[in-house]
Parts: sequence; C-alpha cells; structure tokens
Amino acid sequence: MAGNTYGEMFKITTFGESHGAAVGVIVDGVTPGVEIDETYIQRQMDRRKPGQSSVTTPRKEYDKIQILSGVFEGRTTGTPLAIMLHNHDMNPSAYDDIQHAFRPGHADFTYLQKYGIRDYRGSGRASGRETAARVAGGAVARKLLESRGVQVVAYTREIGGIACQTFDEEAIEQNAVRACDPIASAEMVRKIEQLALIGDSCGGIVECRIRGVNPGLGEPVFDKLDAELAKAMLSIGAVKGIEFGAGFAAASMLGSEHNDAMSSSGFLSNHSGGIIGGISTGQEIVFRISVKPTSSISVPQRTINVKGEEQEIKTEGRHDPCICPRIVPVVEAMACLVLEDHYKRQAAMLG
Amino acid sequence: MAGNTYGEMFKITTFGESHGAAVGVIVDGVTPGVEIDETYIQRQMDRRKPGQSSVTTPRKEYDKIQILSGVFEGRTTGTPLAIMLHNHDMNPSAYDDIQHAFRPGHADFTYLQKYGIRDYRGSGRASGRETAARVAGGAVARKLLESRGVQVVAYTREIGGIACQTFDEEAIEQNAVRACDPIASAEMVRKIEQLALIGDSCGGIVECRIRGVNPGLGEPVFDKLDAELAKAMLSIGAVKGIEFGAGFAAASMLGSEHNDAMSSSGFLSNHSGGIIGGISTGQEIVFRISVKPTSSISVPQRTINVKGEEQEIKTEGRHDPCICPRIVPVVEAMACLVLEDHYKRQAAMLG
Amino acid sequence: MAGNTYGEMFKITTFGESHGAAVGVIVDGVTPGVEIDETYIQRQMDRRKPGQSSVTTPRKEYDKIQILSGVFEGRTTGTPLAIMLHNHDMNPSAYDDIQHAFRPGHADFTYLQKYGIRDYRGSGRASGRETAARVAGGAVARKLLESRGVQVVAYTREIGGIACQTFDEEAIEQNAVRACDPIASAEMVRKIEQLALIGDSCGGIVECRIRGVNPGLGEPVFDKLDAELAKAMLSIGAVKGIEFGAGFAAASMLGSEHNDAMSSSGFLSNHSGGIIGGISTGQEIVFRISVKPTSSISVPQRTINVKGEEQEIKTEGRHDPCICPRIVPVVEAMACLVLEDHYKRQAAMLG
Amino acid sequence: MAGNTYGEMFKITTFGESHGAAVGVIVDGVTPGVEIDETYIQRQMDRRKPGQSSVTTPRKEYDKIQILSGVFEGRTTGTPLAIMLHNHDMNPSAYDDIQHAFRPGHADFTYLQKYGIRDYRGSGRASGRETAARVAGGAVARKLLESRGVQVVAYTREIGGIACQTFDEEAIEQNAVRACDPIASAEMVRKIEQLALIGDSCGGIVECRIRGVNPGLGEPVFDKLDAELAKAMLSIGAVKGIEFGAGFAAASMLGSEHNDAMSSSGFLSNHSGGIIGGISTGQEIVFRISVKPTSSISVPQRTINVKGEEQEIKTEGRHDPCICPRIVPVVEAMACLVLEDHYKRQAAMLG
Repeated sequence: MAGNTYGEMFKITTFGESHGAAVGVIVDGVTPGVEIDETYIQRQMDRRKPGQSSVTTPRKEYDKIQILSGVFEGRTTGTPLAIMLHNHDMNPSAYDDIQHAFRPGHADFTYLQKYGIRDYRGSGRASGRETAARVAGGAVARKLLESRGVQVVAYTREIGGIACQTFDEEAIEQNAVRACDPIASAEMVRKIEQLALIGDSCGGIVECRIRGVNPGLGEPVFDKLDAELAKAMLSIGAVKGIEFGAGFAAASMLGSEHNDAMSSSGFLSNHSGGIIGGISTGQEIVFRISVKPTSSISVPQRTINVKGEEQEIKTEGRHDPCICPRIVPVVEAMACLVLEDHYKRQAAMLG
Repeated sequence: MAGNTYGEMFKITTFGESHGAAVGVIVDGVTPGVEIDETYIQRQMDRRKPGQSSVTTPRKEYDKIQILSGVFEGRTTGTPLAIMLHNHDMNPSAYDDIQHAFRPGHADFTYLQKYGIRDYRGSGRASGRETAARVAGGAVARKLLESRGVQVVAYTREIGGIACQTFDEEAIEQNAVRACDPIASAEMVRKIEQLALIGDSCGGIVECRIRGVNPGLGEPVFDKLDAELAKAMLSIGAVKGIEFGAGFAAASMLGSEHNDAMSSSGFLSNHSGGIIGGISTGQEIVFRISVKPTSSISVPQRTINVKGEEQEIKTEGRHDPCICPRIVPVVEAMACLVLEDHYKRQAAMLG
Repeated sequence: MAGNTYGEMFKITTFGESHGAAVGVIVDGVTPGVEIDETYIQRQMDRRKPGQSSVTTPRKEYDKIQILSGVFEGRTTGTPLAIMLHNHDMNPSAYDDIQHAFRPGHADFTYLQKYGIRDYRGSGRASGRETAARVAGGAVARKLLESRGVQVVAYTREIGGIACQTFDEEAIEQNAVRACDPIASAEMVRKIEQLALIGDSCGGIVECRIRGVNPGLGEPVFDKLDAELAKAMLSIGAVKGIEFGAGFAAASMLGSEHNDAMSSSGFLSNHSGGIIGGISTGQEIVFRISVKPTSSISVPQRTINVKGEEQEIKTEGRHDPCICPRIVPVVEAMACLVLEDHYKRQAAMLG
Repeated sequence: MAGNTYGEMFKITTFGESHGAAVGVIVDGVTPGVEIDETYIQRQMDRRKPGQSSVTTPRKEYDKIQILSGVFEGRTTGTPLAIMLHNHDMNPSAYDDIQHAFRPGHADFTYLQKYGIRDYRGSGRASGRETAARVAGGAVARKLLESRGVQVVAYTREIGGIACQTFDEEAIEQNAVRACDPIASAEMVRKIEQLALIGDSCGGIVECRIRGVNPGLGEPVFDKLDAELAKAMLSIGAVKGIEFGAGFAAASMLGSEHNDAMSSSGFLSNHSGGIIGGISTGQEIVFRISVKPTSSISVPQRTINVKGEEQEIKTEGRHDPCICPRIVPVVEAMACLVLEDHYKRQAAMLG
C-alpha cells in the first residue's frame, strides 16, 4: 500500500493536502457502543492548532472537525468513523516563490523525485497540516484507552539546548512550550522568541510516558511494541530519532547495570523503558524523540530550482520557530493509535 | 496479524524457537528469474553464526540452510522461497534453572504474561536464533538489490564506551567486532574479553550506510522510509534506539545549520541522513542504533520465579558478552528487506 | 481489519451511512500524473443513481461528488484521492416503523447481533448507498485501466426469469434495465412494473465481460484473479452467487469437453472464463452473478421486533423492485478495482 | 503481497511445489495454550491424500506431517506453527512430455506468461499438492473452532450429472466419493470408473454446511462472511463457481418468496444460506461450489508448445478422474480458516 494507513485492527487512513479542500481521517475498527462526540475530539485538535501562543505560528487554521459517519445518537456504531476538517486561511500567493525552487530541509525535492508531480502549495501532503488528521484519529483511540485505564502524556524535555531539570507534570499544559519544568520553559520561550526575530529555528527533545498498560502487550517478533512506536514516531515529519528507556546510554552500560532486576514487589529499575522482548512489562513505557529544527526559516539559504539552477531562498510565510509544543499532541495521538491497535490484536489472539 | 511477518510487497514470515525442530523463513514476492543458490545465502548466514571468534559464544549452531521451494534450476520462480535451518547442539539441561525463574533483561516474564505459556528452552521464540531466519530472508533481498546498484554496509561504531575514531570500510570484516576502526577494534576486543572473565556484558552502537538508492524511495505519510527502517531495527531484540543523520544532535541545532542546502552539484551536507519527508534524497542513508548489553550474564542478579518468590539467578550457558559483531549482519538484512519492499512498492505505484 | 477497505496496492476505503452526513471513499495507491476530474467520475455516479427511469426508485439522492484531495491542476498527485458525497433527501420518518422491527431479508437483525447497536435509518451502513462510494473509487480505477487498454462491461442477462436471447452490446445503456437484448429488456420492464404495483420485487442475473487483459494477471495461490473477483462481487449486498466461464455447467461436463484446447492462433474455446490457475489467459474474462430480489417490499411479512415479539411488517419507502439495472455499474466498479490492484501487484513483482 | 497468505488475524502462508523438497504452511495468530498434536492434524491430511480408494489416483504421496515450531509440551505457544511435508514418490520422467507443451485446462501457459519461468514438474506451485498445506493449516483452525462449538461438513452433492437425492450425513465418510446419498454414491463410483477406462474425467458439485456459528460473525462491507468464503473457495484450483442459500435460484424468485421471515422461535426459512448483509444469522451456513472436470486426461487434445507450434498431448501420469472426493477436506479446511479468522476479528472489534 501507499503508506496512508496506520494500524492493523484499529486503523486510520488520512487524506488531504494543506491547501486542498480538506484534510481528514477514517478510523476503522472502532469498538461499537462507545460514547464519543465532536467536543471530545475537538479538545485534542485545539492542542495542536496553530496560533495558540507567542511561540507558535500566527496562522489560523480552522481545525474545527466534523464527524461524517460512524456515530449514531452519541455512540460509535462499529462502522468507519470519518472526520473531516475543511481548509481555510489559504494564502497561495505566499507560496509563489516555492513553486519552482526546493526549500532546504523540506520534502519539495523528494516528492517531485518520487511522484514526478508536486502540489507545491504549502508543502501539500508533506505539510504538518496532515498531522491534524492524526490527532483526530488519535482522539478516538484515546477515548477507547481511557476505559482500559491507560494514560499517555508527552511533553517537551529540551528545546534549543535548554533541558528541563525537573519533572512537573502539572506544569506541562500551563506553559507555551509544553515543557515539564516551568523554569526551563520560560528560558525556552525566550530562546524561541529570539530565533523568531532573526528568522531562524531550533529543535528539541520530546518525551512520552505511558501508564496503565498491563504486562503482555506487543507482538513479537516484527511488530514489537517498541518497534511499532518507533515507526509511528518516525512517521512524524520532523522526528530524527527515538530511544526507549536507557536508550543510547545503554550502549555504554554493563549488563549488570542495565538489566532490570525483579523483586516480589516488581521491577527494581526501568532501563528497558517498560518493554522487553517487544512486550510491555507493566512498568511505565518511556521514550524520547529528537525533533529537528523547523525547516521553514527566513534566513537566506542556497538551493536549486526545478531546472537545477542555483538560487537563494528565504521561506517567509508564518511558521513555528520550534515545532516541539505542537508536536506533543501528535506524539500522544500516534502513541494512542499504536496502543489501541495492539490491545485489539491481543484480544484477537486470545479471542 | 501476530507480528511474524515483515513487508508489504516483498515480505518474510519467520518461524521457529531456539530449541524446537527448526527455524525458517518464507520469502514472498520474489522477482522471478533471478539466479540464486544456497551458497549465496549461506555466506550471510556465516557472518551471523556463533563461534566465529574469541568474542562470540562458543555455541555451535549449525546454520546450514536448505532452500525448500521457490527456486528451480538455479533461478527464482516467483513463488514463495522457503528456507529452513535445523536446530542442533541443544543442551536443554543448561536451561533447567530458567524454567521457573525470570532472567532479568530477558523476555521470560513478558512472554509468560502475554501468552500464559512459555517455551523456556533457550528463550524460545525470543531467542537471537530467530534472527538467523531474518538473515536468510535478507540475503534474498540483498540479491535483488545488487542488480539495483544498492549497497548496505553496517558496522560497529562503539562498544563498551570505546568509539571508532576513523572510518575504514576495508577493516570492518577483518576484525572480530566488525568495527570501522582497526585500532579501536583491538581495544574493544580486550574490553569484551575482560568482561567475559567476570561474566558481565556490554553494549554498543552500530551504524549502517546505504548507498546507491536513487532519490524518490519511501512512502509518505506513515510508511516513511526512515519510519520503516526504525521499525525494522527496533524489531531486533537488543536495540533500544535509532537515529538518522544528525539524529539526537539535531535537537540542539539551528534550522540554518541543520537544513541541507543544495547546489547544482547536489546537496551540500547530509544532516537528514539521506531521507527527507520519508523519501530518499539520493544521498547516503545513514543511521545508528543503540545496542543494549547482552542480558545473559553470569553475575548474580535478583529476580523472582513464576510463583513470585524472590531468588538469585546466574545465567551460565554460553553467550556473547557483546552482541554488536553478530548484530551487524542482522541490521544489514533488515535494511535490505525494507529497501527491496519499498522498491517494489514504488514499482506498484508507477506500474 | 474491519472490512471497509478493498485492495492491496490500489485500494479503497469507504465510509458513511445512508442517513448520516455523507458517504465517501479514499482511493490510495493512485498512479501520479494521470488526468482526472470530477466530470469523469460523475459520469459513473450517474449510472448508479436512483431515479433514472420508471423501474428505479423515485428517491433523489444527490450523487454529486466532490474531490477533496489527491488531484492538483487536473492531475493525480500519487497521494490519497478522497471523494465525498453529501447525503440529502432524507426522510427519517419514513423509517420510524423499522426502528424496532427487523425487516426480512435486510441486515437489521445481523447488524444488531454483531455490533449491539444499529443505525436503523435507511439501513445505515448496510444501505445500497454505500455502493456510491465504490462506484466513485471504481471510476478512478477505470481511468487507469483505460490506458492499459482494458474494458469492463456488465449488463443484465436475466430478470424475473426472463432471459436475454441475444447479446447486443450497443443496446445495454439504451434500455432501462441495462439488458443486452432490447426485446427481452421490454419484457423485463413490464415484469418489474407489474411487481411494483403489487409491492413485490424480483431478482436477476448480471454478467460481466472484461477485455484487453493480457495473459499473466492474478496472484496464485490465495489471491487468484477469479477468487478476488468472487470476493469483490459477493461483497455487493444482493449478490448470492458467482460463476466463471462454464461455471456451474462445468460440473456436468467431461474433461475432454471443458478443457480449452489451444492452436497456434490461440485458445479454441473459453470454458475457463479467461482465467486458469487464477491467472488471466488473455481471453475475455466472463462471469455471472446471481442477484436476489430486493428485500424491501410492501407485501406484508412476518417478523419480530427487538424484544423478540412477532409482528407484521411492510417496508413502504421508495425502493427498486429489481436492483439489477443499478447494480451493473457497481459490478463494473468492483471489477475495475480488482483489476487495477492486480496490475499494480504484478508491477511490484516484476519491479 | 504475492497471494500466498490467507487471513487477517488467523492466517496461513503456504509454500512449496509438487516436486520440490517439501510443501508446508506457517499458521500465525494461533490462540496459545491449546492442546494439539500431529495426530490430530494427520487425521485431516489422510482424508485428502491420494490413493484412498479405487476412484482416486494411485499416487502415493507421503502426507506425513511434521510440526516444526509453535507447539511446546503438547500445547500451542501463540508463536507461528510451522508444518512441513516432505515430497516423495516423485517420478519426474513422467512429466518429460509436459516440459515444452501446455496441457489444456492446466496453468502451464498462464504461469509461464506471468512469471516468465515455470517449474513444469507436476504443475509446480499450481499442483493440487499445495492444498495439503491448506488442510494442515485448516486442521489447526478446526481445533480452535471445536471449542467454539462450530462444525464444518462438506460433501459431494453431484458428480458427472448424478445428483444426490437424500442427505444422509452418516454416509459421507463411508463412501469413496464422499457423497451424502449412499445410493447415488455407488452410481458416481461407476461413472468415474468408466471415465477412468477411457482416460476422461468429470466434475461435480460440493456442498458445505456450517453449524454452530452464532449470529453476528462477518465484517461489512468488503469482508462479508460470504465474500470471504467465496474467495477462499475460488482459490481452490478446480472451483468455477459458488452460491449461497438459494444461490442462482434466487435470481428467479420474488422478494416475498426469498426473504426469510422471522417468528419468535427464529427464522422460518433459510434462503439466505445463513448470511445476511455479510453477517451470520445464526442459521446453518450453506453453500455449493462447482468443481470442473480434472484437467489431466489421457484423451488426446490439441495444444501448442512453448514455441507456439501445434501438437497433440495426452496427460498420462496418475490422476483423479474426479477431484470431488479429495476436494471435500480442502473445502472444509478453507471454511475453517475463514471462520476462525473472523472469530478473531470479531474479538478484536469488541476487545
């Protein structure tokens, strides 16, 4: 298949370009009889939408969702749940300069190489706008996970070299960068604002913790729970790496250090990040992703146009100098999709 | 599905436990009419097999493969290519002590939680022995990639905190740890030998470079080439993280640094690691994985048995103090499987 | 998965209930760079829409499609093509009587058994309205097949016991029942009109011929071309059987009669229906399907309500006394989907 | 994929050519902890094997199976269950004459067209031998269905124009043709013996009844239970058609006749064949398939060779003059695979 579907038994298929008529998602495999409405889903959409604060793009996409099918009298029916978002606030002229030139760090060049044709308006299918559809689908998964007692929380761990020193979960949704440290978050905001002034951008690290997953979830050997989470996270545009538990630090640990010993009251450490042999241990699942600096910057850069001629390019437009705050709900959405899919696969195996 | 299959259009399904009758692989979607024989596949098997040097386990698994189907008169027929390896050198008594206790770092506990039953002999399905089937399947993919001009090379970058200082490709298969730096490799060997003496183990970092992939390979949005490679690598038992190009370092770079500018003669840097927007750029694809220290150590560890009672455990047996040298061909095999699958998916899209 | 997706490499996912906000389809795996517009797709939609003649339901669904994504400047981009149809002309009160009772022949009872919840308005997801999405998706497949030189033609062979005596291809779209015999078609129309008067319905046989398929299409062993076509056809609500070539008559033939001998100018007969061993022979592919009489009739019938109490039911509403004329474009759409998918699978195998 | 896998959550992948080293099957998605052994599976294999009676081929394939994985101490472990059958009694010289010529009715021509290469020994992958792997996989499904209270029974309804007049279930496994009428069965045997003398063959009709399936099984809209059964049956080499319940007779019935009315004690008829809207009704599931006459006959036939030159061919070898008796266990196996897969999919939806 062409890569627009995620999941086996609980799955989403997304469609839409940033400047087409709409973006949307079909969620298939939904448990029937579950109460859900547009308000519930909209709440997650609002966490991803642009224009939330001083550090996000002033673009006003109307992320107002509409459920087209699969819900009857406030409950899921077991049939596909289609959710659509119309595109608005399109300013195509802002993209005139990118019609013929490839923006460094963007998928302009690779899309043209792959398809031989390119919807150059606002990155087309490669736009971050596509993740709105994921968040909508992820909200349905989150609803189902709630009744399983599973909680998924992501947050910014580091931005522009500024790392959180504490883990204050309450603080996350209270600051503009969704960091777990309110003091560091203030520094991060300043950093982003400074970069915005000079038209540059920065990256960061986002961490995700998943609680309430019983031991035994995940499918050896290829669809290990960590392997699936890795794919799901790397499928988000700006993500360049992922690590679980001790992660890259494990490479310089001894076996006697890294192995999580067990006592009668459970594991004595969690270097594994809650997954061993691709199956959940029952501990907190923990992973971190590396988020690259936003590709869209107004600093002049060298590039070529579709004829191969060299030119300079500045991506004006309105963009997030750091995508971390808005990637957080996308990370959560993808994690929810992976988990709910695996719960249903586990049910199939035993059922 | 239950996770024993990898790939969409070129796919492998593996079977087998470490101490059952056999392990094997079915390779489906093979291009017909391609010359292949057991010798070609065996060459890759021999790179993975135990007992190759002083730093690998002295276990002598007979990794002698047999092609059961799909090849006729020395050529592939387009029908499934089944490859089997009988299991030998089984010493079940060596595993008596692990029948009732969970080895820290191993999948003993999680398998029992998932399935309610556990083939405890030598880790059963969770054994590294399963990767022999992957290497066999990967060899078929490698054969097909050869005619596409694609080369996949993996090697040890770091072991036990000792990092390679140079990149000497010729050296890789000439040293026992498959490191890209012959001087560092000697240190790594010493480190491993020291750990072996005290029954401990260490981890490392393995890097992979893929050359000859034309721009345009990979399937947005969920099946991005890096997302698929991430899944494939994390599906290998000991892998705890992956990063592409600048990877985790990208988190503290500026957009103006990280973006790969272009000139008329191509990209001016490769921070992206050869993939942008999930699609190959035509540059070298580069990723690194974090390999955890081998879980099997003879240092005494705290654990519990199946009744939940605490006990001490020492995993005697014969194990690799560091799995990096033997994971290298597995990394290559998985990369080959991902690439060949995506070439066929690209052919389907255009075909 | 939950069964709302058809195809491997060229695939559609449909959504929508008859009385929800909309029905629609996502077509994934579309060849990029192909000219297509709403007019082309609408032409097929209009062949399926209700209210075309005296023998179809007077319901006026507005089958006006809108392409939401995947097309840019009149060409496909290789990204998912989403097509939506808003639902209109809903008269929910007409369905009040079926809220609590199960209509014989309908999926009311089975949906409730499966899901524990039922969108009873106009059959919900089980409505023939869902086939509008298939026809839209099939039109995209048809467009791609045109450039391959493949033609798909379905038509009514028999209605209410009245069989066509000739095969006049020109006549098919010229008569209200889409029969291949203009004389028989007039009889069929009279038969249907008589049944409409008494509130009863009838079934028929629809035949499909596919031309221009080169030898070599189809995937042994489970995804044989005839097996896939059988699944695709039986997935249409009213279809109760399918046969290829000699079909059920083959059961009483001798091998020496049934085998299609070959001469240097090709096959000497086509009892196989154009498919042997699941692979196209290059001859015309021919199959017939049995279409059951429309379940919705206003003749009083015995049934039970959701409490299990017996009652009489008459399905008033506005329904087709015979669905054959409107099933013809659905049969063609499904056949197109199967074929295009297999062409892409063949390209993947060889590519 | 390349078509060698059947099923979504309970699935089999088969491999092997008739004259290669072995044929086999990997069964994935098996419920863990279920008692199963080789004897149970072998019992089904013996019903399919050649040489059972005067009316089947005297070829002695050794259908002795070996379980290679997935079973530990007599119970399934939830990991892939691999089952292998070595090929024996190969007499390649018997196939010398078919190396260069296409046997009418066989897949010789179409395989060569598809793959450009052909394992001509005994039909290669297109051989009926491949169905041995299906029966082995189906036996595992049957084991799981037993605990669900589901029974699958297939039998010969008609051979060479001779139809059963009664339904005597006890008689089925007592006569050489597995007919449900002991008197008709004797006539069928005579018919087959006569055809064997003149080297010709005949077809027949096989019926299947499935009992104990609760209402609510099946996945609208594309994976309807009847659609999946249709695909599964048409994927068996000799099958040319399928019908459910009233089947082709439904085409000439009125709605008032065909609709299955309901009373408080259940349905009053079963014209639907136990499936409405693609979902089981709880009634007996009933379908019939048309089996073509065996293609291998020693009557001289016109054909061409690989150079396109005309010639006469007689397929000597040892073949079944009618395949019905041996197709019965294959039909049951495929039905079991479909059902168990759908039970697991239902469990996933609700789970």
